[in-house]
Amino acid sequence: MTQLLRVQNFVVSSDGFGAGEGQSLERPFGHADPATMMAWAGATASWPNRTDPGGSRGLDDYFTRDFSHNIGAEIMGAHKFSPHRGPWENHEWQGWWGDEPPFHTPVFVMTHHPRPSFTLSDTTFHFVDGSPAEVLEQAREAAQGRDVRLGGGATVVREFLDADLVDTLHVAVAPVELGAGARLWTSPEELHERFHCDVVPSPSGVTHHLFWRR
Amino acid sequence: MTQLLRVQNFVVSSDGFGAGEGQSLERPFGHADPATMMAWAGATASWPNRTDPGGSRGLDDYFTRDFSHNIGAEIMGAHKFSPHRGPWENHEWQGWWGDEPPFHTPVFVMTHHPRPSFTLSDTTFHFVDGSPAEVLEQAREAAQGRDVRLGGGATVVREFLDADLVDTLHVAVAPVELGAGARLWTSPEELHERFHCDVVPSPSGVTHHLFWRR
Repeated sequence: MTQLLRVQNFVVSSDGFGAGEGQSLERPFGHADPATMMAWAGATASWPNRTDPGGSRGLDDYFTRDFSHNIGAEIMGAHKFSPHRGPWENHEWQGWWGDEPPFHTPVFVMTHHPRPSFTLSDTTFHFVDGSPAEVLEQAREAAQGRDVRLGGGATVVREFLDADLVDTLHVAVAPVELGAGARLWTSPEELHERFHCDVVPSPSGVTHHLFWRR
Repeated sequence: MTQLLRVQNFVVSSDGFGAGEGQSLERPFGHADPATMMAWAGATASWPNRTDPGGSRGLDDYFTRDFSHNIGAEIMGAHKFSPHRGPWENHEWQGWWGDEPPFHTPVFVMTHHPRPSFTLSDTTFHFVDGSPAEVLEQAREAAQGRDVRLGGGATVVREFLDADLVDTLHVAVAPVELGAGARLWTSPEELHERFHCDVVPSPSGVTHHLFWRR
């Protein structure tokens, strides 16, 4: 079986930004509101952070529950892990996700600043410095035959696209304009030369773009 | 966790038939051509019977790979298992699927005619006589906390719908007219009073109807 590198449930604004400007401890997505960007997933029965019963089991639920399907490791950028820039001043910060991170696999955080690995529940965070191809090789080995999820942010997805390492992408375009921030694309058409694409509008208002290699 | 009863990847013709007329050993779907009805799934990368590499990884692939997601048992009608009618003359017939059936769980075949259970690879077939509610109870217990798939055919799906036991349905409407056969519905609107519904056209030509309880 091929081990794919997959982008899953990555949300961008209608103008192509994965996050807004001005990331801080209080605002992990900068001026973007993550609740609005992720509303389509949050309304589904499979949303892992759901506290009330119910939730939809339609199209958006398929994408939400597919998030971890056959995934054995995640790669993310340093800014997805932390608002901090530069060398780690201490190791108190352990990510935005509390004691039960939603990954349940090894996670490789790309950073130039070394830090020891640590484990929270069934997720272990490793801090790695290297090219996209090198980090992917480490993540593939950790995934033990399963696929690797490329978790973002937008800048990291673009780096892996530039290195032609991405096999499939699911990008949900939310009906929100951000105007500025971390850009994934100017238009999804930028990917059409290298990828097949299905464009699937959801009743929730997002449009799912599904790309796979030609 | 609730254990759902789910209809998954059930294909009907544009006029609402799950299979044609005149089932026989050579034609499990009667005058319907299963290759045409299932073409949307057969073209995907996740199709379990795929012999050549490749295959699409777009919308239809999500449904194909979701077939076994969190499923712990299947319920099927006798006509999905065999073209035979009446008491079993012998036990040589072991289904249409060869030595590696695609279920990988216990399967409960609804029949008035007793027969001993048997196992092929990781699928065990049980033959059970009872009401839909009784059979569902057996399947739920066997599923050990996971969901139960209702595999069809159309008549069996209708029986479980009439007993109000179905939680979710994914029905793929193929661009094929059959004119006669085992009918699931005259129109999908028959279910709208009891179920929410997303209608999702696929570039492959099928239209996916996703229903979940109101």
